[in-house]
Amino acid sequence: MSDPLARLEVGYDIPARPGMAEAEVQTPCLVLDLDALERNIDRMAGLARAAGMRLRPHGKMHRSAEVARLQVAAGAVGLCAQKVSEAEAFVRGGIADVLVSNEVRDPAKLDRLARLPLLGARIGICVDDPANVADLSNAVRHHGTGLDVYVEMDCGGARCGVTTPAAAVALARAISEAPGLSYAGLQAYHGSMQHIEAPEDRRRAANTAFDKVRDIIAALTGAGLAPGVVTGAGTGSWALEAASGLYTELQCGSYAFMDADYARIRADGNARLDTEWEHALFVQTQVMSVPVPGRAVCDAGLKAHATDSGLPVVFGRPDLKYLSASDEHGVIGDPDATLAPGDRLRLIPGHCDPTCNLHDWYVGLRGGLVECLWPVNARGKGF
Amino acid sequence: MSDPLARLEVGYDIPARPGMAEAEVQTPCLVLDLDALERNIDRMAGLARAAGMRLRPHGKMHRSAEVARLQVAAGAVGLCAQKVSEAEAFVRGGIADVLVSNEVRDPAKLDRLARLPLLGARIGICVDDPANVADLSNAVRHHGTGLDVYVEMDCGGARCGVTTPAAAVALARAISEAPGLSYAGLQAYHGSMQHIEAPEDRRRAANTAFDKVRDIIAALTGAGLAPGVVTGAGTGSWALEAASGLYTELQCGSYAFMDADYARIRADGNARLDTEWEHALFVQTQVMSVPVPGRAVCDAGLKAHATDSGLPVVFGRPDLKYLSASDEHGVIGDPDATLAPGDRLRLIPGHCDPTCNLHDWYVGLRGGLVECLWPVNARGKGF
Repeated sequence: MSDPLARLEVGYDIPARPGMAEAEVQTPCLVLDLDALERNIDRMAGLARAAGMRLRPHGKMHRSAEVARLQVAAGAVGLCAQKVSEAEAFVRGGIADVLVSNEVRDPAKLDRLARLPLLGARIGICVDDPANVADLSNAVRHHGTGLDVYVEMDCGGARCGVTTPAAAVALARAISEAPGLSYAGLQAYHGSMQHIEAPEDRRRAANTAFDKVRDIIAALTGAGLAPGVVTGAGTGSWALEAASGLYTELQCGSYAFMDADYARIRADGNARLDTEWEHALFVQTQVMSVPVPGRAVCDAGLKAHATDSGLPVVFGRPDLKYLSASDEHGVIGDPDATLAPGDRLRLIPGHCDPTCNLHDWYVGLRGGLVECLWPVNARGKGF
Repeated sequence: MSDPLARLEVGYDIPARPGMAEAEVQTPCLVLDLDALERNIDRMAGLARAAGMRLRPHGKMHRSAEVARLQVAAGAVGLCAQKVSEAEAFVRGGIADVLVSNEVRDPAKLDRLARLPLLGARIGICVDDPANVADLSNAVRHHGTGLDVYVEMDCGGARCGVTTPAAAVALARAISEAPGLSYAGLQAYHGSMQHIEAPEDRRRAANTAFDKVRDIIAALTGAGLAPGVVTGAGTGSWALEAASGLYTELQCGSYAFMDADYARIRADGNARLDTEWEHALFVQTQVMSVPVPGRAVCDAGLKAHATDSGLPVVFGRPDLKYLSASDEHGVIGDPDATLAPGDRLRLIPGHCDPTCNLHDWYVGLRGGLVECLWPVNARGKGF
């Protein structure tokens, strides 16, 4: 078979080619420390197993079928996706079980979702409105397929999801009575809770959320609609969900790569989260100007990393500080004037999910060499 | 010729197909009001002409060869780009004159830049370090090509650029003596000044910048190195540069699309800038959940628009407020509870440049129909 990368031009289509030295990689680009990535994936798989929990990592973080396959090989039951086109990218990339942990309303998207099981995959979807149940049922009946459907509840994040036990019961009943749909369980994810820095504050938010989850599970069970799966949790809180006795499945995503925002939060015992999980993802950048001593300008700005959760941190260089980002520039404070044009740095992005979505490729590094080049399969797949 | 869009799947590869109704477009996606875009492009071209200025719009904003061709057809002398791979995308897309308004240091990028004139284009580049001049000269001699080289000065933005008249003169002399390089002029752009809201504050910042520009032009002229072109300015300040008597070329970009951040700033006379330029670019989004009355959740979050310059504004709906963005969700405050699932909205993004870079396609709309689908040719071209 011919090499599918052979026709792609380094520096235009792709940032690197397998076999290349790390110092030749074209910046800015995403690089993965493959050893760290593998250790993170194995560690989370082991922790979920030890806790007796299913693990369904969230693929919106990496949008990569290769990373997803590593997670499934380590024991994950499947992946989460957030959009239909993203789920399609995972199924086309060989992932046989995908939960779209989100609502889908557009008729064209419902049709695509209902066709996805024809590719041999098990597909889940969330609902928070009975009108949506009828549309989903019509879509799968049209294609002779089926979907696992989860009731989504609002755990306190004030985004999507039903807010009362009565609404959850009505929805679960509608699903279980709808032709072509299987009532699969409860989606109970609290996004903003993941990022609360202090463990005691996070535990308090979790307990408030868990009270709501407990009430809804009790109401569903009382109505003969006990959820088969209760799914949720993220990298910042998974141990709390696991210990709650309420959840059966974890949806953590960021653990595999880690980012600067998660690194700041503290696990139990007050150690920072980056002592538990290694930074495996970086934006590699080069210095392109040192206009005055102490100020270096690098080639990674707003189009190379996302700043919604803060600026990046320069990996392994506590003496340097990424001070500001414009479209294509990053200004780096270098008080000891150590940097020269051409110098390469690794940035830990503030938020891995939207950062990965800016790039087409992951450059996988091991021992100073490019080992692999993986497409960000679902980049831009927001439909 | 077969239709190059024919093999692309709507909802997976592309958001729409020409001829489709606006209400069928797959969200979230970038839409262009083609009438507004054409009016903005014509208006800026006329204003530059009336001021006796060359116009070289910045292509980092749209990254689209189609938009660039409209700008050139209206009279622009060429385009600006910020990266070598972006310049390549413009040249491959038919733009014959591109200035890379930035420094390039990596040897592989210098080689690509020096090869670009072989495609028949005139290429410019900026420098702020004499060591870079020698590298550029070696690269063009290797390929038997040439480059227009501009001295970049720091106008007060504290990013790249020389900071003293003496350094500018030394650099201009080095360029003019370097084989294969043409000393083309002075790059004098002040990015952060564009976004100062009050006109009197912006004018003050401009005058400080212009004092520096004047000093450097005087020093260059005194050394027999008068700059042929003095290039800079943006949508927020171009009238000041044009009136200064110092500049000969304008690099405005955002005027073509406009965004929420620029809309907030005030032109002379205190009118908001969106009374001068029309919003032509939007992120089209759909409501996918209305979990409680008054709160709607749409399908456009951090992966559909950039939030570095603030949250988007809902176009034509002052009753609605985009309250918060997560990866794939936007929460919209709807105090009168008007929204239902499936409703479509146009968002004016906070910052157009990094927003456009998130998408693969522009959906061009006219009269409620999709007229064209244009690739974001240089999306992800950050190398």
